[in-house]
Amino acid sequence: MTATLWGTPDEAKPLSPSIKKLLGKLLNASAENVAHPLEDEIQIQPSQINPDDLADLKKIVGDQFVTTEKRHRLRRSRGKSYPDLLDMRSGKELDSPDAVVAPGTEQEVLEILKLCSKKKIAVVPFGGGTSVVGGVNPLRGKFSALISLDLLRFNQLEDVDSLSMEATLGAGLSGPHAEILLENYGMQLGHYPQSFPYASIGGYAATRSSGQSSAGYGRFDEMVRGLTIVTPQGINHVGHNAPKSAAGPDLRGLFLGSEGVFGIITKVRVQVHKIPECKRYEAFSFKDFHSGVAAIRQAVQTGTGPTVIRLSDEMESSVNLTSTDSIGESDSKQKGCLCLTMYEGTSEHASSRHEETRNLLLSLGGKSLGENPVRQWEQGRFGAPVLRDGLLDNGAVCETLETATDWSNVISLKKAVTKAIGDRLANTGTPVLIMCHVSHIYDGGCSLYFTIIAGQSEDNPEEQWWNTKKAVCRAIVANGGTISHHHAVGADHREYLPHEIGDTNISLLRAIKNHLDPVGILNPAKLI
Amino acid sequence: MTATLWGTPDEAKPLSPSIKKLLGKLLNASAENVAHPLEDEIQIQPSQINPDDLADLKKIVGDQFVTTEKRHRLRRSRGKSYPDLLDMRSGKELDSPDAVVAPGTEQEVLEILKLCSKKKIAVVPFGGGTSVVGGVNPLRGKFSALISLDLLRFNQLEDVDSLSMEATLGAGLSGPHAEILLENYGMQLGHYPQSFPYASIGGYAATRSSGQSSAGYGRFDEMVRGLTIVTPQGINHVGHNAPKSAAGPDLRGLFLGSEGVFGIITKVRVQVHKIPECKRYEAFSFKDFHSGVAAIRQAVQTGTGPTVIRLSDEMESSVNLTSTDSIGESDSKQKGCLCLTMYEGTSEHASSRHEETRNLLLSLGGKSLGENPVRQWEQGRFGAPVLRDGLLDNGAVCETLETATDWSNVISLKKAVTKAIGDRLANTGTPVLIMCHVSHIYDGGCSLYFTIIAGQSEDNPEEQWWNTKKAVCRAIVANGGTISHHHAVGADHREYLPHEIGDTNISLLRAIKNHLDPVGILNPAKLI
Repeated sequence: MTATLWGTPDEAKPLSPSIKKLLGKLLNASAENVAHPLEDEIQIQPSQINPDDLADLKKIVGDQFVTTEKRHRLRRSRGKSYPDLLDMRSGKELDSPDAVVAPGTEQEVLEILKLCSKKKIAVVPFGGGTSVVGGVNPLRGKFSALISLDLLRFNQLEDVDSLSMEATLGAGLSGPHAEILLENYGMQLGHYPQSFPYASIGGYAATRSSGQSSAGYGRFDEMVRGLTIVTPQGINHVGHNAPKSAAGPDLRGLFLGSEGVFGIITKVRVQVHKIPECKRYEAFSFKDFHSGVAAIRQAVQTGTGPTVIRLSDEMESSVNLTSTDSIGESDSKQKGCLCLTMYEGTSEHASSRHEETRNLLLSLGGKSLGENPVRQWEQGRFGAPVLRDGLLDNGAVCETLETATDWSNVISLKKAVTKAIGDRLANTGTPVLIMCHVSHIYDGGCSLYFTIIAGQSEDNPEEQWWNTKKAVCRAIVANGGTISHHHAVGADHREYLPHEIGDTNISLLRAIKNHLDPVGILNPAKLI
Repeated sequence: MTATLWGTPDEAKPLSPSIKKLLGKLLNASAENVAHPLEDEIQIQPSQINPDDLADLKKIVGDQFVTTEKRHRLRRSRGKSYPDLLDMRSGKELDSPDAVVAPGTEQEVLEILKLCSKKKIAVVPFGGGTSVVGGVNPLRGKFSALISLDLLRFNQLEDVDSLSMEATLGAGLSGPHAEILLENYGMQLGHYPQSFPYASIGGYAATRSSGQSSAGYGRFDEMVRGLTIVTPQGINHVGHNAPKSAAGPDLRGLFLGSEGVFGIITKVRVQVHKIPECKRYEAFSFKDFHSGVAAIRQAVQTGTGPTVIRLSDEMESSVNLTSTDSIGESDSKQKGCLCLTMYEGTSEHASSRHEETRNLLLSLGGKSLGENPVRQWEQGRFGAPVLRDGLLDNGAVCETLETATDWSNVISLKKAVTKAIGDRLANTGTPVLIMCHVSHIYDGGCSLYFTIIAGQSEDNPEEQWWNTKKAVCRAIVANGGTISHHHAVGADHREYLPHEIGDTNISLLRAIKNHLDPVGILNPAKLI
């Protein structure tokens, strides 16, 4: 992944004529005046790190694993949110880590954290760099220097227990790399977030990621059997001697979702699954979002057991967003709301889950659309972020955001968020396309994932977006949603967290932070 | 439940002739010299509480909700472990809480904790009093006075969300009381620990309880959507605005399993389930424990989805322990290991899960035994603790203990624990009956639950037991088991916790304790 694009330049996807037509028609967006500088043209701040400190870091990890080279620092300057991309295109000199350091062992990580505590250098852990909440941005807090601690050398499958179906993975492994290593044992992780091609195992754990097969395999935090985390206090193994235990509080929950502010996750022991013998697919259509939501709620509460279940609202269904090659091609057969389901496992397991789910969905008003829409989605499912660069090149705002809530609050939260986005962006004089889907379901509620496309403000696209984001976050908090279902808090959601969990819990998180990281070097100004 | 018996005196169950025969034959145990004092004959220490402090407590909750009466203090002096029962029968003067206080609101709980912090009075929260790890025992630590804070007035179903299938329950509600309240809404909790008739909702949460239907409905900690906990710092609501969230660490995990040392749980919001339309039952027999374990492992890893699945080892199967009315009646048809399964839900759901599970178990060597063994178990399943009093009356050691580990370690851990129990008790000159079952299964591993019956040492039954317990706990820790799968840590497992989670994590728990309870009044000498 390059600094300015999602994917490699080869993968870059110019928009199809149908999307350009849609953009032109809906948004009056155009490619005029849109900057897209090449990587070489982007300026970053000169490194501020003290040469003695740099030398000390080199002593710990070796010369070749510390760099102040621009391309490495640039790549670790931002994540992949829309405002991150705007920053990359802004022509401004970007703030950036002063050095990139890549330790190879937990002992080296510990020595780095001790040195940085002593020398007052902030440390931002870096995995895949796919944060969309400012999680990797180089916020220095009170520190004058900041390093990016890259986990790329923690890239081993450490061990496998084939009977217990558990494996220990290095935090720096990407999703695909981990799957390739596990495949040798007939195993898979079954975790497929949209960021799958680049995101790392450590990032999954640090942000409480959730993947597209969460209905079948659970969220990433639920897959974690244990983890190794290095804090300035030491190297710590978290997890019990069993998959489940009543031996005191579950401290895994404290480090999962800790976003680098409590320590650096170096290894994660996960529950893995057999590569499925069989996959089954069926799409359904519901007359509206409301009836689709009621149906998928009944499916999860009955326990019919699909591996994947997704419901798009009317707008998302109408633009066929599930297939990136044909977005915007109006599909006259497609009315109402599209619901995709997939079933994996042994042949008997997949077919019994399929049959029970299909019978229920049909009885609740779903109409079968056959296999194809699901297969199309499966093929193109990691492609959407690639399109975003093309949309920005064409003068569009393009961002996603997400929340979750109880079933009883889904419809009203969706309405409130849609209104907040629509009102705010309409104020900037652009039409707005707001699409939504549900892709993670629980007995008690579900996620809501919004995709927003609008015309970029020519004067100040940053301000246009941040005003929108603020309105949305306030709407989420005021209407009983969680500030993030699977993107995490980072810098962008930090001010809203106290509204969700309360000041007492923020104080508790701070007390824990003070115990583990008394100097406060770890990922300043993120999370809390 | 009375202080000295499990259940009411009406429920007390004299041992059947078959069990007496078994005891006589196996253990040479007899009722001679066995004391079973009536409640009135037990002496407890005089209340140590300062009259001014007592008056202050009465000011907070009202005169009628503070008592120093003996019967109330006695009832809250011990839990229900075998050594607790020995204490009750010992004839010694028992240490006891100095007063029992029953607040009715969170504000009152907070005022009590502030007063006790100021006056240096230890506080032990009390729910159902069914701890088998010394969790409610009146350990004073450095404090000269100790109160039992009884949550019995937190006995309301606070609210119900019928769409999200969530309900908020008072911490003092017993299992059956909670189920009766939920039944009005067509709902059930689906949590059936052995202590179900008496244990409380708050106790379930504070100890990370697990019930007999955990395969279907999950452990109690997995059912908790949020909780209200009162610490000396304030009234705190823990949980996000959604069933799942990525908004920072999951602080629920810190309070679930906190065993009263971080705060007093007053309310718990839980995921509930529809009362099942249909139940299906089938028992199987496996030729030995090893092949039975392999089969239930494959069932959970395939996801066949039984609501209940239990596997007894050869010894437990042979004494027919699953049916308390016929324990010890040798069943000549019953060879090998008994495996019970149950399936709940809609008719379609129960039958598809039944079919998939049965096909798999049969293919792995299981032989069907039909419905009856499961129905017998279901009827008698909460009866076993009642028998214990009868066994003690007849001069037997009778205790249960449990652990959990990965599938790859189950057989070797079982062997090590069995050896530790057997060696230790054999040293005291008694034959020993050790039975074991698996009743909680996960993708990665399972629980092991041991029932031990032996002859009581006439000289010093306390020493006989504690030596055995120590040997077992050491064996568990040394052989990669968790020190408790669902009984918690309490006082009895406290010294072994650092061996399982490490000193760094103990320090972290202490730092959290110091933040929330700086004077240290909450349940001293428990957990950490």
